Amino acid sequence: MIFLGIDPGLNRTGVGIVELSSSQVRGRGNSLRYVYHETIAPSSKLPLPVRLGHLSQSLQSILHRYPVDMVGIEDIFVSANVRSALLLGQARGALIGSVALRGVPVREFTALQIKKGVTGYGRATKEQVQKMVEMELGIRLRANEGDASDALACAITLAYSNRMQGSVGSASVAGR
Amino acid sequence: MIFLGIDPGLNRTGVGIVELSSSQVRGRGNSLRYVYHETIAPSSKLPLPVRLGHLSQSLQSILHRYPVDMVGIEDIFVSANVRSALLLGQARGALIGSVALRGVPVREFTALQIKKGVTGYGRATKEQVQKMVEMELGIRLRANEGDASDALACAITLAYSNRMQGSVGSASVAGR
Repeated sequence: MIFLGIDPGLNRTGVGIVELSSSQVRGRGNSLRYVYHETIAPSSKLPLPVRLGHLSQSLQSILHRYPVDMVGIEDIFVSANVRSALLLGQARGALIGSVALRGVPVREFTALQIKKGVTGYGRATKEQVQKMVEMELGIRLRANEGDASDALACAITLAYSNRMQGSVGSASVAGR
Repeated sequence: MIFLGIDPGLNRTGVGIVELSSSQVRGRGNSLRYVYHETIAPSSKLPLPVRLGHLSQSLQSILHRYPVDMVGIEDIFVSANVRSALLLGQARGALIGSVALRGVPVREFTALQIKKGVTGYGRATKEQVQKMVEMELGIRLRANEGDASDALACAITLAYSNRMQGSVGSASVAGR
């Protein structure tokens, strides 16, 4: 199964894709494979509707290229202030709406769940998360790819949590 | 030209469509015609991603049925608190993203601009706006159609402001 994780943001949205395949060898468990990552960064000089459109369309284009089974997105509870909450909210809405239009189920994870899922420790730093993502997937990310790293961490958390549940029952098929 | 207005909200989103056609008779000006209105109300019992998907898909379906040239949406600056700002922001983002995916330009209007545009008075009540929308379009709306009324008011403001500018130069083609 192919899992896509999103770290939403109006200025920078991270997207990461991993594949979890069942091992044919008994007792060897499943294997997680890196597929893709990207940072979507609409220019902050453009009007807001254009920036939101950039996010929607870039994500559509990724979903068009990869047969994604399920999407995980970081949940947001807090924000510095109402203004930043409105902006972040709109970015997140544009992304979830874009996934919904393809009928792919979306699950939400808190930052705590993602950190715990990847490092085993809820207070891990961004650097620790990135290190574990790199080890888990056998890749190297650049220092400025923190958003993509967080997105891959979300995809890994989704993949493992889905495997443990053994079903997709708790996912929300957006728009259905 | 066909103009669609949106009054965004997670629980209730109003959508209204009007058509502005140039009169063939010199000096008679343009004529504004009512086309459609709808209130999209995703169930609040569903998970957030599903509700956002409902908004995106309902709007896509309307845009599929009507050849809309331009979309106007109410701008939001304030919100009661960070939590409500995040929710409202996500609804607005899902709607703008949905329009962007069809390549239709989006313009933002403040509540003040919409009230002024329809009633000539920036502090008009919702009831006064609805009364003017009904008179302008020659229709009757129910008392619980305040969101659709606001959306039609937004569409009317967009139509007139577009006519006065004589061009679509200031619109943002979302996603381009």
